[in-house]
Amino acid sequence: MAYHGHGYGAPADYPPPGYTHPGGFTRGAPLTPAVDPAIQGWFNAVDTDRSGAITVVELQKALINGDWTPFDLDTVKLLMNLFDVDHSGAIGVNEFAGLWKYIQDWQRVFRHHDRDQSGSIGLDEFAAALRDFDLNLPPGLLNIVQWKYASTTAGGRRPALTFDRFLRASVVIRQLIEAFQRLDTDRDGWIQISYEEFMKLVLSLP
Amino acid sequence: MAYHGHGYGAPADYPPPGYTHPGGFTRGAPLTPAVDPAIQGWFNAVDTDRSGAITVVELQKALINGDWTPFDLDTVKLLMNLFDVDHSGAIGVNEFAGLWKYIQDWQRVFRHHDRDQSGSIGLDEFAAALRDFDLNLPPGLLNIVQWKYASTTAGGRRPALTFDRFLRASVVIRQLIEAFQRLDTDRDGWIQISYEEFMKLVLSLP
Repeated sequence: MAYHGHGYGAPADYPPPGYTHPGGFTRGAPLTPAVDPAIQGWFNAVDTDRSGAITVVELQKALINGDWTPFDLDTVKLLMNLFDVDHSGAIGVNEFAGLWKYIQDWQRVFRHHDRDQSGSIGLDEFAAALRDFDLNLPPGLLNIVQWKYASTTAGGRRPALTFDRFLRASVVIRQLIEAFQRLDTDRDGWIQISYEEFMKLVLSLP
Repeated sequence: MAYHGHGYGAPADYPPPGYTHPGGFTRGAPLTPAVDPAIQGWFNAVDTDRSGAITVVELQKALINGDWTPFDLDTVKLLMNLFDVDHSGAIGVNEFAGLWKYIQDWQRVFRHHDRDQSGSIGLDEFAAALRDFDLNLPPGLLNIVQWKYASTTAGGRRPALTFDRFLRASVVIRQLIEAFQRLDTDRDGWIQISYEEFMKLVLSLP
């Protein structure tokens, strides 16, 4: 596998590097020759009401984790918000091509970090993944984050993260660190932030 | 209904007023005479493996919204974290009594704010509820929050909040406002916050 060093950071980016926003899509626009027929096929399968656009509801029905649980709604919305470039509330086939690639990139990262091939990311595997992503958490916070995003608890089988929550956790932490760094212009580890900015920053997170 | 003015704020509190932490519960402790038999019956129904303690997995299986969807995991964890006083990762029957009352209080609030009795909280109903809770959002943020917590999208039926997401949204916004106010000691609408504090504050939210 060619996943080493610098490459890890890529899929956690928002939007991912190499992804360029497809321009000019209009709802119900005809298929252009640029769309891969395989992508069009997947798009048609997800677009169950044949409206020419995929809604959050349709996308959630189509996305399942390795343990057959549906993606949690917040992760589905994260994906929609990333790729619904024209803010229509639904994604067309061109936007879908980007989404499809993004999910596949994340699946490769997930499989790579699922060292024991259990189909989920154990808490130790999650910690290792965050280190590889260069998402360094203050001491004491790793434990909070592991439990926040774990999909099951000690009461059941070993706590671990399903794909959806692994993706969401990584994106949220990346966004938070970047938001702080943008505000910390003198790089002293402290920021000044207004009520309005603070609320907007936090409540805009996936 | 006796829900007016001041009373609205109550259930959004963390922990709710009037709720006192039940002390000294140990996992598997015998039933004490203080436990309401009805509560014990509900507890037994939820504790499907008869371990004497309810895990996140058991609690999630027991909690459903008015539209028969299961509670989202983040809301189930919010509830567990509020009532798992001894941090055992599971709740005993005494902790469960508090949880049960808390959910019932929220159900009353939910039904009150579900003006059109649709079984969900429409975006306008949500805005009205936040005003009633004295959770005043900066301009422009209401729309972000409405869409963040909405359970469906314009693509399907009218976007609205299920019970779980209504509860979680209200608790998160309350906690955020309180966290900001605690740090804004001179009440000028600005705070200084370190990287560590910032990350801990945000990633500890439900």
